[in-house]
Amino acid sequence: MQEDPRELIPELCRQFFNLGFCSGTGGGISIKKEGKVYVAPSGVQKERIHPDDLFVLNEDGTKVIEGPRCANAANLKQSECTPLFLAAYNLRGANACLHTHSQAAVMVTLLFEKEFRISQIEMIKGIRKGNTGKAMDFYDTLVVPIIDNTAHEKDLTESLSKAIEEYPDTNCVLVRRHGCYVWGETWQRAKGMVECYDYLFSIAVQMKQHGIPTVPEAKKE
Amino acid sequence: MQEDPRELIPELCRQFFNLGFCSGTGGGISIKKEGKVYVAPSGVQKERIHPDDLFVLNEDGTKVIEGPRCANAANLKQSECTPLFLAAYNLRGANACLHTHSQAAVMVTLLFEKEFRISQIEMIKGIRKGNTGKAMDFYDTLVVPIIDNTAHEKDLTESLSKAIEEYPDTNCVLVRRHGCYVWGETWQRAKGMVECYDYLFSIAVQMKQHGIPTVPEAKKE
Amino acid sequence: MQEDPRELIPELCRQFFNLGFCSGTGGGISIKKEGKVYVAPSGVQKERIHPDDLFVLNEDGTKVIEGPRCANAANLKQSECTPLFLAAYNLRGANACLHTHSQAAVMVTLLFEKEFRISQIEMIKGIRKGNTGKAMDFYDTLVVPIIDNTAHEKDLTESLSKAIEEYPDTNCVLVRRHGCYVWGETWQRAKGMVECYDYLFSIAVQMKQHGIPTVPEAKKE
Amino acid sequence: MQEDPRELIPELCRQFFNLGFCSGTGGGISIKKEGKVYVAPSGVQKERIHPDDLFVLNEDGTKVIEGPRCANAANLKQSECTPLFLAAYNLRGANACLHTHSQAAVMVTLLFEKEFRISQIEMIKGIRKGNTGKAMDFYDTLVVPIIDNTAHEKDLTESLSKAIEEYPDTNCVLVRRHGCYVWGETWQRAKGMVECYDYLFSIAVQMKQHGIPTVPEAKKE
Repeated sequence: MQEDPRELIPELCRQFFNLGFCSGTGGGISIKKEGKVYVAPSGVQKERIHPDDLFVLNEDGTKVIEGPRCANAANLKQSECTPLFLAAYNLRGANACLHTHSQAAVMVTLLFEKEFRISQIEMIKGIRKGNTGKAMDFYDTLVVPIIDNTAHEKDLTESLSKAIEEYPDTNCVLVRRHGCYVWGETWQRAKGMVECYDYLFSIAVQMKQHGIPTVPEAKKE
Repeated sequence: MQEDPRELIPELCRQFFNLGFCSGTGGGISIKKEGKVYVAPSGVQKERIHPDDLFVLNEDGTKVIEGPRCANAANLKQSECTPLFLAAYNLRGANACLHTHSQAAVMVTLLFEKEFRISQIEMIKGIRKGNTGKAMDFYDTLVVPIIDNTAHEKDLTESLSKAIEEYPDTNCVLVRRHGCYVWGETWQRAKGMVECYDYLFSIAVQMKQHGIPTVPEAKKE
Repeated sequence: MQEDPRELIPELCRQFFNLGFCSGTGGGISIKKEGKVYVAPSGVQKERIHPDDLFVLNEDGTKVIEGPRCANAANLKQSECTPLFLAAYNLRGANACLHTHSQAAVMVTLLFEKEFRISQIEMIKGIRKGNTGKAMDFYDTLVVPIIDNTAHEKDLTESLSKAIEEYPDTNCVLVRRHGCYVWGETWQRAKGMVECYDYLFSIAVQMKQHGIPTVPEAKKE
Repeated sequence: MQEDPRELIPELCRQFFNLGFCSGTGGGISIKKEGKVYVAPSGVQKERIHPDDLFVLNEDGTKVIEGPRCANAANLKQSECTPLFLAAYNLRGANACLHTHSQAAVMVTLLFEKEFRISQIEMIKGIRKGNTGKAMDFYDTLVVPIIDNTAHEKDLTESLSKAIEEYPDTNCVLVRRHGCYVWGETWQRAKGMVECYDYLFSIAVQMKQHGIPTVPEAKKE
């Protein structure tokens, strides 16, 4: 918890690039620490972000406290995901929020209607129930709401906020044909959960290919 | 064999993370050396473990000899897999035990009933027959028992132990909808075998997709 | 924008090798800067290119200004893709051009006839409309022309040029059973777009596997 | 061409491990230089080989000139693939020979009978016609013989040699349910070709999944 978000965000972006979460400048991560919100610039190569490229906003995200300090600073704009990150901070008390364009996330939004549902896969236990700090059980059914995409990222804020409120147990919202948002109390928790969610999306796609239901009909004992 | 488990475990965890064996804080590895059992903490990012984060237990795993020495030590708990690692140590004389949440391992537990069976794939020869030190033959049928998952990891100990005893030739137990445990006389052997098992799980899933039986009907000569 | 193409090209080639874009000496990248065109040698391991291995050509690509400076220089020939890179520079004012043999690119040329078409996938927004600098919209249909391959790479120049002219909105041309060419105003833009295009090719292959049309029948709102 | 095989072999093994060519101690590479044959030890982690672990044999492979110099030397045995590497050296004048257990290679041996055949995929041009130094054409049909596996690796020597002689144009022999051997005049050529062959195996598996023939019925012009 002592890590500097300026160092952490570039490092995590590199790792996420390698995991296929933020190809082609897509996706990203924001961290909130000591009343400051750190966000990456928009439309840049996520695996090459430098600590000096970041925007630092005040707690409610309305004002830039520190802009990028790099040579290219004047050309940088803060991530369009900022209002979405703030929704997770404000509605859930999260301190880190991730956005991925993972192909597995997009595929499940094409294979499921309103909600992604899966049960009885061990990795579900890596997911917390909302902001209770309590882990999901193996026999719980993980439900992730799927909202429809909009032409502009910022226009997702309302439906994302609505989904966050309607699904108090979720720490992820899927955006159809787009990707997902995942948040957590700490960056470690957000990062751990995004990997668990993505694993579950990926295995669900494989289960669909083999005709295996993602929620078993009767509880196995 | 001169490597320090404190250095080795973090290094192997990084490698396993890259192989998809321990995403989202799942999975892990334990090594036993000179009467000490080294285990990772529970619920931490496996690819970021530091030598000072490890727990060192006495030989039968009942007592912590050295706790984590890192700043965050007070918050760390030893891996919930500890009793399962100990089962492999005690019942088989293993000195290293690995646990993965690999998607291929989970998929085969959904595609096979009581046992995973495969024959006549070269990588079978990378697997030993129990603790005999003797390698499997190409024409042998590799049988890996599949036990059902439980709500809590520690509750797997009994069925894992039972499977270890009932299948003296196996160095792996699959846990349905969860992953697998693999052990070996040395960490090198355990690591080599987990890669062979995982390769076989992965190719078996592909064979199923193409309608190819994993155990050919008649022995090909 | 201050980076030296001599350093950048080897670095990008290493990254593209890891992304599966240039296995087995295939694929490559060219950058144009300050009136000079930098190209890699033909038939070399792209992930091992050294800054001294590059060819530097004059602006219209007709003359080698600086040949390779490495010990092996006499054996090196400039990339056969050179006329194709020049087509993108001359017809579009591009300053970077990439060529990949990505398996996803080849697969879509086998699954689509004259054009690859996809709509309503967020990553489309990472693609620009021709050289207007304007990003595609989520609801736009991305159209990538597919030209037939020729026995010799240089013989592609004519049909590639024709496709570039007939499809003023595209920054990519697919070559059937071969791969694709992607260009951009800057290397950053070309690199960002090649990742977006490849993502879209890859997800289109998956959508085909699941019987999901890549262009939805009616616009979803 | 000035690289020391003692340094090169460990480096290439690390790269091949990351490409999935030599998981679980399987696969390997041998290089012949200045009348010496360099081979890796048997049954070791290929991605952790150290220059001091190698065996150096005389030109015809009958005698160990320099054994491993590492602390663990007494426990090391030379790769069981040695007679197979020598077959490529002796019958083809190759100076590097690779053996992979790639899953794509194994899958094509399950999907094809006596020969793997593919045509009109650009990467075919990365393959040479036997030891003529002449590259395959795009419209050529690449034919790779598939031999049946044997219980012991050394027993493959006869059928591998026979395949090499019967297929003078090939630089690869597939071994059913096992993997493949690829060789070349130089290590660069062998490495480039193994990546091309593996790419072709992988895309052939995908083509089969989509019902696309690997050799088009009529030549496309």
